[in-house]
Amino acid sequence: MLYLIGLGLGDEKDITIKGLEAVKNADLVFLESYTSVLGISRESLSVFYGKEVLEADREMTEGAEEILSLAKTKNVAFLVVGDPFSATTHADLILRARKEGIPVQVIHNASILNAAGKCGLQLYRFGETVSLVFFTDNWKPDSFYDKIARNRASGLHTLCLLDIQMKEPNLESLARGKVVYEPPRIMTISQAIEQLLYVEHSRKQNILDEEKLFCVGLARIGHATECIAYGSLQQLARYSFGPPPHSLIIPGELHFLEAEHLESFRITKENT
Amino acid sequence: MLYLIGLGLGDEKDITIKGLEAVKNADLVFLESYTSVLGISRESLSVFYGKEVLEADREMTEGAEEILSLAKTKNVAFLVVGDPFSATTHADLILRARKEGIPVQVIHNASILNAAGKCGLQLYRFGETVSLVFFTDNWKPDSFYDKIARNRASGLHTLCLLDIQMKEPNLESLARGKVVYEPPRIMTISQAIEQLLYVEHSRKQNILDEEKLFCVGLARIGHATECIAYGSLQQLARYSFGPPPHSLIIPGELHFLEAEHLESFRITKENT
Repeated sequence: MLYLIGLGLGDEKDITIKGLEAVKNADLVFLESYTSVLGISRESLSVFYGKEVLEADREMTEGAEEILSLAKTKNVAFLVVGDPFSATTHADLILRARKEGIPVQVIHNASILNAAGKCGLQLYRFGETVSLVFFTDNWKPDSFYDKIARNRASGLHTLCLLDIQMKEPNLESLARGKVVYEPPRIMTISQAIEQLLYVEHSRKQNILDEEKLFCVGLARIGHATECIAYGSLQQLARYSFGPPPHSLIIPGELHFLEAEHLESFRITKENT
Repeated sequence: MLYLIGLGLGDEKDITIKGLEAVKNADLVFLESYTSVLGISRESLSVFYGKEVLEADREMTEGAEEILSLAKTKNVAFLVVGDPFSATTHADLILRARKEGIPVQVIHNASILNAAGKCGLQLYRFGETVSLVFFTDNWKPDSFYDKIARNRASGLHTLCLLDIQMKEPNLESLARGKVVYEPPRIMTISQAIEQLLYVEHSRKQNILDEEKLFCVGLARIGHATECIAYGSLQQLARYSFGPPPHSLIIPGELHFLEAEHLESFRITKENT
């Protein structure tokens, strides 16, 4: 049996009762550790559950053979930060398990896709979500720009998910046949805005005005130290959000209740 | 103190540990009972928590005075099916609490907006969500049609949330100054498709072809008896999904992994 269990966003107590019961009954517990970041360590989860939590890194998760082979004869709990359906790779794992005749149970939880509503923007007024990945010297994908433009033209909000690279292989080493991992890095709001403005300056369609476009920065949503701020891109880029994970929302048209809610997070001289 | 606590989608065990702790510490516990439906009764929650769970109906929730007044001196837990940010009215409650200086803590959970990913469609490839309300003889709002058309033109999926009317006043009685409530009704996939096709037949833009457009019906997602089926609108309208809550997804362009996942839910002669 394979349990895919969402952990929610903050700490060990964001798991559901159903999820915790499945962990307690599991013979083996894995934590998927590369598509998202929880507010606490894997070791803290082990202490809370009273059983060892093993790391499932990118190779193990995407390869999946070891997990599926274990799930044929044992109860395997596969823990995912947020909701199990927040990343393509988990949907793939479920499909492969089903094909091999392994029973799968999914235990849902909050993800940033719904918890983003905390800033007061209505979730049903969001358009397509975009992902911003770290630019490199020769790879600066900018398809997010057209998606943001399209959402804004329809009056819709855009949630920007920011890159999390926990265990990326160094490409130069890989080309020499050697697997060396880059140090982990997680994109901040400030870095995201730098990349947004880089694309605005090259595309010049006046979608992202750094002074006039007011956006929402979200840091550590669901953690005890979560932080939400509303201001111009320029203000947000300078604001002290503290450690990641961060997300950014580019609002569309605002309903008066949304506007009122956002005002309560407005950056002022006092809170900068 | 006001706790807004998401209950998730299925039963009493979908609450998080953090949520359950807040309920246990609360002086008063209310269940918001009109924007959504859990798989179990309010009484079952009372038994599970070992304390009385009071009903917060539409008037009490939207009025909010009683809840806010209690939260000034007591710990009040306000339970919401799904996530607290799935309905505008909860965002309004938070705003009003903050204005009155009442501390608010939100405890997130899964909502249909992310659990819809269970059918295998990627959540970041959804466009604007639409809500279908029950048509009446003289009120047949059809703005969803343009939104679905816009999403499909961009290759995006559309989640259709179906109407839940738990305690609607009868308008004729209201006009005579008397409040009489209609019996509760929750829209099924079959009723939703009937309304979609009604609008297609009057607008004739060929967005919703009842034989050629393949969609996803979702019933009781997160409940033990959940049901997902993939087929033409005609097939879905006839399929036995069992009791509500139901939702419907109108897919946009499919990634091959999405298509593979949907095929596993395909309606065949055997499972009709």
